[in-house]
Amino acid sequence: MSAHPLLLATGPSGPVDLAAFETEAAPGFEGSKIEGKQALLDLGPELAELQERLFAEGRSGGTRRVLLVLQGMDTSGKGGVVRSTIGLFDPQGVRITSFKAPTDEERAHDFLWRIRNAAPGAGYVGVFDRSHYEDVLIARVRSLAPAEEIERRYAAINDFERELTGEGVTILKCMLHISADEQEQRLLARLDDPSKHWKFNPGDIDERAEWAAYQQAYEVALERTHTDHAPWHVVPSDKKWFRNLAVGQLLRDTLVGLDPQWPAADFDVAEQRRRLVDEDPVS
Amino acid sequence: MSAHPLLLATGPSGPVDLAAFETEAAPGFEGSKIEGKQALLDLGPELAELQERLFAEGRSGGTRRVLLVLQGMDTSGKGGVVRSTIGLFDPQGVRITSFKAPTDEERAHDFLWRIRNAAPGAGYVGVFDRSHYEDVLIARVRSLAPAEEIERRYAAINDFERELTGEGVTILKCMLHISADEQEQRLLARLDDPSKHWKFNPGDIDERAEWAAYQQAYEVALERTHTDHAPWHVVPSDKKWFRNLAVGQLLRDTLVGLDPQWPAADFDVAEQRRRLVDEDPVS
Repeated sequence: MSAHPLLLATGPSGPVDLAAFETEAAPGFEGSKIEGKQALLDLGPELAELQERLFAEGRSGGTRRVLLVLQGMDTSGKGGVVRSTIGLFDPQGVRITSFKAPTDEERAHDFLWRIRNAAPGAGYVGVFDRSHYEDVLIARVRSLAPAEEIERRYAAINDFERELTGEGVTILKCMLHISADEQEQRLLARLDDPSKHWKFNPGDIDERAEWAAYQQAYEVALERTHTDHAPWHVVPSDKKWFRNLAVGQLLRDTLVGLDPQWPAADFDVAEQRRRLVDEDPVS
Repeated sequence: MSAHPLLLATGPSGPVDLAAFETEAAPGFEGSKIEGKQALLDLGPELAELQERLFAEGRSGGTRRVLLVLQGMDTSGKGGVVRSTIGLFDPQGVRITSFKAPTDEERAHDFLWRIRNAAPGAGYVGVFDRSHYEDVLIARVRSLAPAEEIERRYAAINDFERELTGEGVTILKCMLHISADEQEQRLLARLDDPSKHWKFNPGDIDERAEWAAYQQAYEVALERTHTDHAPWHVVPSDKKWFRNLAVGQLLRDTLVGLDPQWPAADFDVAEQRRRLVDEDPVS
């Protein structure tokens, strides 16, 4: 694994202690909040061009695509990342899926069924706001499936993600890591602002009561599904601006690594130019 | 119909002469290109808030949603509107569908089948980049269906759009209107820039050869499907900045007309505050 400060530093089989990961830090960025926000905006044109190249490649027979998986406790900012960071891309090249509690139809299938259906097509940047990881997080904390089924899922997830990788998907998994205190402040902010009441649900406090169990479920999930082909990134997320910037930088690094190229013309440019200018069919 | 200069001024049964609609004008906007681009950016926060209110309403039992239908000749800028104007919204609240030539499965169904499947859910702004109108445009010009089937489709479209309206969809149909000369310049620009070759297809020149037939097909479509519940807007689109701004203003006016409100809390705010602060389950 890389030494990038955002990367989960353990190997796939080591135990994970989330408490050892800072939530308030801004590793690798020296500037102020204002500078951090500007740095994200400055990434915009580069992200947009890289994504357009990938899209162009996908339209010309390429199979590569990117999948960003966003996980985190309530209020950790999955929606904020989509708005501020994914919002920098051309919306035509992005496919966002927000996973809610499964429907009856979804429940009648394997937990990965709806996930497979939402995988991005060639050339796209797919974004999962929540994901198949809910099936080993809330499902574990709330015992929504038998223990042996939960247990089965970790390996099923690794197999599934390896399969996606084989199909051309580069997977970027981000756990937006906030402190319990920060969550309390954010829930309070929702209660104190009538324009945010729709985002609040009394059940959020019931979930918060299971904070420790959720942290533990995350630790197990990170430990069991942090693989070479689909590594996790624990993103310090108490600072919203840093969280948005960090995910933007990870996406930039991912796309730079793919190095998508403008497809070569599969037609004779001079000939088409002549058809259009010298023999213009409309005149 | 309104006297807004962008609105198609004819009634549903009058003949339409597209040549009478300017392509290069910037009706209703006095400023320069730079000012026009800034005016679009200035719309951003208002559009984003209106859309978030609509989204919040949709999450709280509301059924209203908006559908923007973008049609226009090749290079008219459907993609540009999505990038520049739709890009101002939070991508979470937008659903974009680009309709290509129908697949075998789609062809095995009525032409509206795939359109119905792509209709936006409650609270969303749906965007169709091409649409069911292709089935009376290219289908008419290229005789892709029998004449009586094409004829049937106009009424079928009106019925379908009325049905959508009844379900809570506000439909905004924009024909991005460019001149043949402007199209030639844009196709040339694609040929002269290797980063745009992937957008060019020699077939585009074959389609261009049918310019007059396409204009006529548009005229028939506008005449037959310009209804009170789903009116057409002919947007002068030779100036890209004006086109993007005009669609942005139409969306703003549409959303202002809907006047979505933040949903009232369906819980006792003081009680939840007490649970969170005085009885914080994590401490």
